[in-house]
Amino acid sequence: MKNGKIYGVGVGPGDPELMTLRAVDVLNQVDVIVIPQSSKYIKSVAWRIAESHVGDHPEQEKLFLTFPMSKDPEKTGPAWETAFREIGERVQNGKSLAFISEGDPLFYSTFIYLLNQAEKKWPGCEVEIIPAVSSLTAVPAVIRTPIADGLERIAVLPASYGLEDLRTILDLFDTVFLMKVTPVMAEIIDILTEKGLLNRSVYVSRATMDGQSIVTDLNLIKNDKCDYFSMIMVSKKERSGKIVPDHHKLIFAGEK
Amino acid sequence: MKNGKIYGVGVGPGDPELMTLRAVDVLNQVDVIVIPQSSKYIKSVAWRIAESHVGDHPEQEKLFLTFPMSKDPEKTGPAWETAFREIGERVQNGKSLAFISEGDPLFYSTFIYLLNQAEKKWPGCEVEIIPAVSSLTAVPAVIRTPIADGLERIAVLPASYGLEDLRTILDLFDTVFLMKVTPVMAEIIDILTEKGLLNRSVYVSRATMDGQSIVTDLNLIKNDKCDYFSMIMVSKKERSGKIVPDHHKLIFAGEK
Repeated sequence: MKNGKIYGVGVGPGDPELMTLRAVDVLNQVDVIVIPQSSKYIKSVAWRIAESHVGDHPEQEKLFLTFPMSKDPEKTGPAWETAFREIGERVQNGKSLAFISEGDPLFYSTFIYLLNQAEKKWPGCEVEIIPAVSSLTAVPAVIRTPIADGLERIAVLPASYGLEDLRTILDLFDTVFLMKVTPVMAEIIDILTEKGLLNRSVYVSRATMDGQSIVTDLNLIKNDKCDYFSMIMVSKKERSGKIVPDHHKLIFAGEK
Repeated sequence: MKNGKIYGVGVGPGDPELMTLRAVDVLNQVDVIVIPQSSKYIKSVAWRIAESHVGDHPEQEKLFLTFPMSKDPEKTGPAWETAFREIGERVQNGKSLAFISEGDPLFYSTFIYLLNQAEKKWPGCEVEIIPAVSSLTAVPAVIRTPIADGLERIAVLPASYGLEDLRTILDLFDTVFLMKVTPVMAEIIDILTEKGLLNRSVYVSRATMDGQSIVTDLNLIKNDKCDYFSMIMVSKKERSGKIVPDHHKLIFAGEK
């Protein structure tokens, strides 16, 4: 019995046109597309991005797997048990599977746990990663702000974990991406204000997706519950072309 | 006279199949493709990546511009003067131009300077950025190493500039990407050894391109002149699936 192959396929940040040619190709060739979702009742964001570029292949299976948004092992454990059983059956039957991820498959994604387990569970199973446009390049693109140039340095941190070091990091780096900002927005604003960086900080949610939102005055959303697909980009260097200066809170769908 | 539009188009890390659908689309629709090259005698890497996906459009112009690899304003100044004149003429004639960049257009690219100048030089000229797969997702993909998961933090720094802080940064971050490593490889190896991280560090050059090289024992290249398109990824967390453990120096062309 030959072993199958697992592809970790990134479908990009949201705009389906930002998928790579390779991702589209793999999704149209595999036996099974594995679609992770946070609930049976909410359509997977990754699948919403990819769907329009996947043709109708009667032989191809769509395997929907539910991974609850939780850190409670009582909830995630059974979900992964099901996932490993369903994926494992197909791998051991020699099938090719593409596990899709919103953004890049190795950047804060559900796929990472599967990658870490695959070699142990199914020795000899080949795993190939199809890298993608991640929010680290999509967010700067929509606000037309350079990520790094010349000698500049970049830091990326989940804000809900890293605030005790945020001042140090803001001193050491030129561009700082703060992920997972919702629970600590007020504290972030205080630190950015203290460092004189509030007006160099932009909040972007759902970059390149429908419902994209750009907020340049963070105080306007100090008490809001922010979107899951959001981040703050702090760009210390004064550069032109940062953002339309007359708008403090813009909500629009794409810029194409 | 209507103003033209400039697209900053990222063509991805090297494998032409890692271009986005949007990049291919824009390159096949614009009036002018602007192709930066470091010399008249060496084919642009970005154009080598994009070329096979651009059809034959008799009306479309290819504008080759030479930007010498130098920090000397005596050399770069005249190159930019020519570039602004050539691009400016076309912008003011209402043309659409796509300036191509290897990787992402906002990540250590020549395009950034054009972006910074465009609004001043040609008020009303629209600029749109087409984000791309950058080496930050391509390198992890080829060595199948997660970039960041859960609460982890990422740092990116040009090594030839940042070594005085490298120990601090290695303490504060889980994944560290060191760019521009050639002139300081021996010092980097010393610091990584001191921190017990040498065996968690992988050198990758030309990720996803022909001639891709992966080196897991950095001492083997301590005195080598490294490729321009190279970086070291330091991944502190022990994870499975890191790399084929029996190979210390692999050179091969792609993994597809």
